[in-house]
Amino acid sequence: MKNNNEKIKLINNISSLYKMQYRVGKTNIYIKRDDTLDFAFGGNKVRLFEYIASIIVKSRVERVVTFGSVYSNHVRVAAAVCAKLGVECDIIVLEEEGKKKTGGNFVLTSMYNPNLLYCKLEEAYSFIDDYQERLHKQGIKFLWIPGGGHMPEAAWGYVDAAKEILIQADELNIEFDACFVPCGTGTTQAGIVYGFGKQKTKVFGVTVARTKERCRKEIEDIILKMDINSGTALKLVENINVLDNLNIKYGESNDDIHSLIEDVAITDGIFLDPVYNAKAFLGMKLYLSENTQYKNVLYINTGGTPNIFICEE
Amino acid sequence: MKNNNEKIKLINNISSLYKMQYRVGKTNIYIKRDDTLDFAFGGNKVRLFEYIASIIVKSRVERVVTFGSVYSNHVRVAAAVCAKLGVECDIIVLEEEGKKKTGGNFVLTSMYNPNLLYCKLEEAYSFIDDYQERLHKQGIKFLWIPGGGHMPEAAWGYVDAAKEILIQADELNIEFDACFVPCGTGTTQAGIVYGFGKQKTKVFGVTVARTKERCRKEIEDIILKMDINSGTALKLVENINVLDNLNIKYGESNDDIHSLIEDVAITDGIFLDPVYNAKAFLGMKLYLSENTQYKNVLYINTGGTPNIFICEE
Repeated sequence: MKNNNEKIKLINNISSLYKMQYRVGKTNIYIKRDDTLDFAFGGNKVRLFEYIASIIVKSRVERVVTFGSVYSNHVRVAAAVCAKLGVECDIIVLEEEGKKKTGGNFVLTSMYNPNLLYCKLEEAYSFIDDYQERLHKQGIKFLWIPGGGHMPEAAWGYVDAAKEILIQADELNIEFDACFVPCGTGTTQAGIVYGFGKQKTKVFGVTVARTKERCRKEIEDIILKMDINSGTALKLVENINVLDNLNIKYGESNDDIHSLIEDVAITDGIFLDPVYNAKAFLGMKLYLSENTQYKNVLYINTGGTPNIFICEE
Repeated sequence: MKNNNEKIKLINNISSLYKMQYRVGKTNIYIKRDDTLDFAFGGNKVRLFEYIASIIVKSRVERVVTFGSVYSNHVRVAAAVCAKLGVECDIIVLEEEGKKKTGGNFVLTSMYNPNLLYCKLEEAYSFIDDYQERLHKQGIKFLWIPGGGHMPEAAWGYVDAAKEILIQADELNIEFDACFVPCGTGTTQAGIVYGFGKQKTKVFGVTVARTKERCRKEIEDIILKMDINSGTALKLVENINVLDNLNIKYGESNDDIHSLIEDVAITDGIFLDPVYNAKAFLGMKLYLSENTQYKNVLYINTGGTPNIFICEE
């Protein structure tokens, strides 16, 4: 569990952890409010980028290239960090099918004037390869950051978060039976599984995009790469659990999602974002309704609140 | 300085206070991040409403009536608190001239399904009077909350904040020469002046709507009502300072505002809202550029970040 990675401080607050008014049956829900982290509108990506920022600085590149959807929190924070470090930022953006959506994260990302390059979903892999090839040929030194900040170094951001959570749980004199978090690329969940280590807390991701199997594999890969010299990582992967109990495509929504957003806004004054956290919270709710043995569980709100303000043009 | 008012806890975090990268000449700017308070999108109104919520409960009303613009943070938090307490919420909203604006605070306010009543600026006073009269005649018991939550009891929320700030300043081993805050109705500034008490910190409001004279008078009224039995309040009003060094109407903006929002987003990853905080921060910047004697000043970011996402229909 030794962290040899350096980080650059972006966060100045400790996000709160407390018991919600909202309950599922007899299960108490505690919430970790990473949506209120105080850099660039917060959320999980800021913790990942404390480590990625250090890689950018050490690589001495003039340019970063990354990738994301129009809803991407990763892209927002990437643009913010590059601007702060004085590094060019090229963002390959997935073009949406159907109606064009504006607002949300893109309002914030645009403030940093990154270079936006649009591509379609089916051509994304070749577009990314070709673009990097072109920069190489032009002799431009750049750092490629995978979509979502999916890097083993970045996952250490959530090892730090897990330690913070354990301190807060201790102050509340509580042990969590389970912990739930949205699973996009799995980097955040990998960090949490790693950081909780041998705690008895079962860690669940609720997938918001990919299949359960793909999520599991990505999380396992990251964990094994985080600590290649230690045997402990092999044991930890047993605590990777992924739920796919919702039948909703990435970026799409339904009435259950909207009702839940309103319910949690009323009981707790928390606005869950529709793309990641309302879905994961709903997945948790459905799971806990059917598995009533849990007494105290933790939900990690990973942010994405700008997506509440997405509007169709 | 005795606080006989009760409050209902809405906030679970301590907002950070730290030194910004952004500077004005040789003056260091520290920032208090009340935009990250963790109830209903945060901001100063949440502190005010911890006290107002207690008044609502004690008054045993079934209904609250209040007033605000489409940009109003007060209205958002009023709707959230009423929903949480299970009280009906009637909001008299100022109809905008010109293009209709959507998004921002209204997206959040709408989640609580308050009763919205629209009126024009010139008829606002009579509309509010007539509406209350009508409710009285119908025998409906309600509590009137003035626009902005402008009540002496509410100002105690910023007396608490001032105490929190003094503890944080102490931990950083710093004394602030001045403190700047946006001035709308003046309730927040009144609390800060009162809370700082005999500290040497000079408190400045930057008006975002009203004349300097009106602001001063409102703040003075609140302070004198907060502590009617004590002579100390009379002395404190000497620390009310209001700047009106910007020539921009309420809710309007200009290139200087937009540049400043981008600059602070880059240096510090902070998104200042265009209606309140970008204006007040700009007012502070202009003042400090001409008054270079200040070494360390505090800016209180009072939130309103949903307004970043306002769009014209």
